[in-house]
Amino acid sequence: MQEIAIIGIGQVPVGEHWGKRLVELAGDAIFAALEDAELTQVEALYVGNMMAGQLDKQSHLGALISDWIGMRGIEAMTVEAACGSGALALRTAMMAVGSGIVTSALAVGVEKMTDTSPLETTSALATAASADWESIHGVTFVGLNALIMRRYMYEYGWKHEDFALFSINAHANGAKNPNARFQTPITADVYKKAVMIADPINLMDASPIGDGAAAVIVVPADLVKGRKGKSNIRIAGSSVSTDSLAVHDRQDPLWLSAAEKSAKKAYDQAGIGPEEIDFFEVHDAFTIMSALSLEACGFAERGQGPRLALDGEITPEGKIPITTMGGLKARGHPVGATGMYQIVESVTQLRGEAGPAQIDGVKVGMTQNIGGSGATIITHILKTD
Amino acid sequence: MQEIAIIGIGQVPVGEHWGKRLVELAGDAIFAALEDAELTQVEALYVGNMMAGQLDKQSHLGALISDWIGMRGIEAMTVEAACGSGALALRTAMMAVGSGIVTSALAVGVEKMTDTSPLETTSALATAASADWESIHGVTFVGLNALIMRRYMYEYGWKHEDFALFSINAHANGAKNPNARFQTPITADVYKKAVMIADPINLMDASPIGDGAAAVIVVPADLVKGRKGKSNIRIAGSSVSTDSLAVHDRQDPLWLSAAEKSAKKAYDQAGIGPEEIDFFEVHDAFTIMSALSLEACGFAERGQGPRLALDGEITPEGKIPITTMGGLKARGHPVGATGMYQIVESVTQLRGEAGPAQIDGVKVGMTQNIGGSGATIITHILKTD
Repeated sequence: MQEIAIIGIGQVPVGEHWGKRLVELAGDAIFAALEDAELTQVEALYVGNMMAGQLDKQSHLGALISDWIGMRGIEAMTVEAACGSGALALRTAMMAVGSGIVTSALAVGVEKMTDTSPLETTSALATAASADWESIHGVTFVGLNALIMRRYMYEYGWKHEDFALFSINAHANGAKNPNARFQTPITADVYKKAVMIADPINLMDASPIGDGAAAVIVVPADLVKGRKGKSNIRIAGSSVSTDSLAVHDRQDPLWLSAAEKSAKKAYDQAGIGPEEIDFFEVHDAFTIMSALSLEACGFAERGQGPRLALDGEITPEGKIPITTMGGLKARGHPVGATGMYQIVESVTQLRGEAGPAQIDGVKVGMTQNIGGSGATIITHILKTD
Repeated sequence: MQEIAIIGIGQVPVGEHWGKRLVELAGDAIFAALEDAELTQVEALYVGNMMAGQLDKQSHLGALISDWIGMRGIEAMTVEAACGSGALALRTAMMAVGSGIVTSALAVGVEKMTDTSPLETTSALATAASADWESIHGVTFVGLNALIMRRYMYEYGWKHEDFALFSINAHANGAKNPNARFQTPITADVYKKAVMIADPINLMDASPIGDGAAAVIVVPADLVKGRKGKSNIRIAGSSVSTDSLAVHDRQDPLWLSAAEKSAKKAYDQAGIGPEEIDFFEVHDAFTIMSALSLEACGFAERGQGPRLALDGEITPEGKIPITTMGGLKARGHPVGATGMYQIVESVTQLRGEAGPAQIDGVKVGMTQNIGGSGATIITHILKTD
């Protein structure tokens, strides 16, 4: 496949956007991406979204958003793999451009989650898990992750406080990101005293939901060859792997096998290994997920994810900075948009436009977007010269 | 893009499958397609589905179905544009193979609609329309189509009975298809006396919902070059276009502009015009939609769709046979699966395997899958030597 370049990015701050409909959030992110790319038209639109049918009573977002952004008539569709929907929008846009059916495509991730009751939102989120084996019993997402975290602590001998730095680092980084939902650093004491949600997961282990939208524009890299700066961000690796939807049915519930497979394929495509990744946008829906992702992708030994955090290696100054703009924990987790925020933030870092959150000298960034509790995992590796 | 071949097809009969979960229906169609292609593994799975999140409380079908069919780990995702989701699964599989990221892909369309109350199903279906302008006022899909049909009759001077042959032809063809939901021919009298649903649409103008799944397997055409018979079905044209979601906002509510655009692109790709199409699987969710599709795709003059039917040209012996295996009206309309049934049926015709429903000497078939009341339209042209 021909190489693909990302030439425009846009986002809205994650938050409670009471005054904006879903289509307006998507539109705002897209208009920003178009302005950034200095374009007014593209040939196709791929929308990452999980819950609009359930929460907004609106399916069929492709045609709706195309029309709203003034591009009535273009090819458009929605793609979905629960919380992994955002990165799939990029994946699909890449396939469309890569196959030659279009030469420019928009990918937008969008979700509106705060206009409905917490019960409705929690129920809609639970459709990402197995209806037959998990959600039918009333298990929520935080409940499933609590089971995983509890078992992990038991198997590898970690204490709850050993996960604190995942949360502290995310909030410290989010404080430097004007688009983050939470922009206040937290202390170890705040982490320790946070209200328990599903033991051992407390409020500071869990990412907040939110309304949000983020978008990118992709074209064949050849089209922008020789251009410096903004346009010079290429997709060096892109891969999707799956696993059992139900956690109990996995070979090892403490090992993200889809993350391992997906990362390996992306490394192979990029011709590099984990040691060459300058920063890593992990899917820290819960602190335990950060640990498991770091292990499955080769940054830590099995069971040793928290060690990286305790050694200070996940901060902007560390060996493998993660959640550099706040991650799901502080930037927020508007489900179907999250994967696209990871991409937009990585491009921002690679362009050197991350302001106070900028990590020096980064050339290669990796993002990993997770659907469900590890059943669909999408890895992208982005590069600049 | 390299040429793509369809080398396997599978389906389950459309009906009320009380004894099978959604994942089982999808699996049964996929297993049939694998057996047909003499394969046991593919590299990716694209699922067309609209309502599982709402009706089955199960999103994230890609990973779920991959696991169920014994392919845990492969790339998978759901694609959606309301009732157009089925054809989009093929479109996405084609992009995946066409871009070279995989060399074999499964596309399945699946929907389970009869385990829920009619109110729940009707509400879920209404999410295909504009939530802000249409469904919020209580307009259902049949209601929207009734408004279109009424206006059409007024503008062009047609009577209700002038649409009868669309329904009669579909039921006559469905009677020869063992996978059709309704396998009984109807008479003009049955059509005339059918119960009114939303004036002027009566029960015989409207397609029935149902549970169903259909699947195809695609590979690069080069891979099966020289093979005769079953494997020798190629995608000669594939195109998606969109329009305003809300009917009132279209330039002309009686003209399917997305069908015109989508068909034109597909004709151009195939290097042919409507006169070279041997049969046409239209999206006859309602009889009025058959008329509008035939006009937009160049088979009839504007406002003259019913004339084709009255002249006997849409039957298996006519100039442009439509709904050759029963169409949505008689085969049934399991929403997210419908577009894939159209593809599977077209392949069946092109292979000469349609049994009593076979149309003689067909070499080029066209399918058109419609999302909403015309907001997303996907056209495919399939060819054999």
